[in-house]
Amino acid sequence: MNGIGAHEVVVEGSDPDRQLAEQPIEQIQQVLIAFRERMLDLKKDRRLRYVLVFKNQGAGAGATLEHPHSQIIATPIIPRMVQEELDGARRYYELKERCVFTDILDQEMSEGKGRRIVSTTERFVALAPYAPRFPFETWILPREHRSSYHTITDPEEFLDLARILKDTLQRLNVALDTPPFNFVLHTAPLADDDLPYYHWHFEIMPKLTRVAGFEIGSGFYINPTPPEDAAQYLREIVALA
Amino acid sequence: MNGIGAHEVVVEGSDPDRQLAEQPIEQIQQVLIAFRERMLDLKKDRRLRYVLVFKNQGAGAGATLEHPHSQIIATPIIPRMVQEELDGARRYYELKERCVFTDILDQEMSEGKGRRIVSTTERFVALAPYAPRFPFETWILPREHRSSYHTITDPEEFLDLARILKDTLQRLNVALDTPPFNFVLHTAPLADDDLPYYHWHFEIMPKLTRVAGFEIGSGFYINPTPPEDAAQYLREIVALA
Repeated sequence: MNGIGAHEVVVEGSDPDRQLAEQPIEQIQQVLIAFRERMLDLKKDRRLRYVLVFKNQGAGAGATLEHPHSQIIATPIIPRMVQEELDGARRYYELKERCVFTDILDQEMSEGKGRRIVSTTERFVALAPYAPRFPFETWILPREHRSSYHTITDPEEFLDLARILKDTLQRLNVALDTPPFNFVLHTAPLADDDLPYYHWHFEIMPKLTRVAGFEIGSGFYINPTPPEDAAQYLREIVALA
Repeated sequence: MNGIGAHEVVVEGSDPDRQLAEQPIEQIQQVLIAFRERMLDLKKDRRLRYVLVFKNQGAGAGATLEHPHSQIIATPIIPRMVQEELDGARRYYELKERCVFTDILDQEMSEGKGRRIVSTTERFVALAPYAPRFPFETWILPREHRSSYHTITDPEEFLDLARILKDTLQRLNVALDTPPFNFVLHTAPLADDDLPYYHWHFEIMPKLTRVAGFEIGSGFYINPTPPEDAAQYLREIVALA
């Protein structure tokens, strides 16, 4: 392993008081395109194996800058959490010859009339995962199978993603009184442009509970809110966009 | 897996304003003995595979009760973090035919005149681990090889443990202005009374940084404080006990 890396801050807008959820959709689209541009640029440095895009909003979620921003950290190894997710998805594929994320989408869209679905757009689905670690944890997944975020080229796809990201963050803001939150973009490692078993996606985690002794010691998470309840609550909020 | 478990609260004393570090050593000894008593009792229920003992002190560390207390959660499976630690220790043992924790203790006690040692007693060592996840993370390990906390029988051993636990918590309180913290007791699963490759130990983690998007997404931890600096700082505090 090489002791090299990169840490970048993506400034999401010029107004320090206007959080991402309050930006116009076209501005959010630009932020999402910026993630891809930076990934493609960092990919040129062959010592870097992974680009982790994430956002901490609010001091409770670990933000240390007030100005609306996201962060990018590139690492010379594939992070442990990413590797575990990839390994699990590959094992599923070896067994079933299908992408687990495609199966999840199919099942969630049909099962019990979408009990865990929060919202859908032309190209994306926002849902409460079957076994969320945190209350109101919400994922945004592309309907189309695609393993790497950086392979998106259609500006319309970024616009549709901006639409559902803004809508989801606004629903969480209404439901939970503008909570601190983290989101993490999950995508395939830089070297893998097209994995048959993986879907890039966003995981959004409002910070309502604290990771404490039990979670640190066990790796298990105590979540008092069933995903079906969280999804129903978020679904019933009238979209503000 | 069975959907069974237990959750118990250990009340550490009668005075709501007297935290564990401020209790007399004999009182701390009683708390440490109570952990063992509860483990032995929970062990009788053969559906339970592991007993996790931990403490959250301060709202910043996830405490939701103000009265000084520790917690015990028994689970019907071995927690993921525990299993990973056991697997790593077993692989080391298979390779070297030695317990990794004994090797760590030997190395830390000799290397560079104990650069990461915080304090020692007759039977225990408090040290900053070689690769701490958190600033001022401190471990307490028994010098004698023993894999299961619940196999301790000598009251003197609990007294000596109380002494180094109180001393360590007091040093952290002076160094970091009584920080919120978590501790977790790492011990072998209930069914394994004597593993040749594992040492029970306490891991104490002051809550100075926040686990945020990067840590959640990567499983990696950013720690700005080298363990040698933390240990030196803690060492130089004049013990109050």
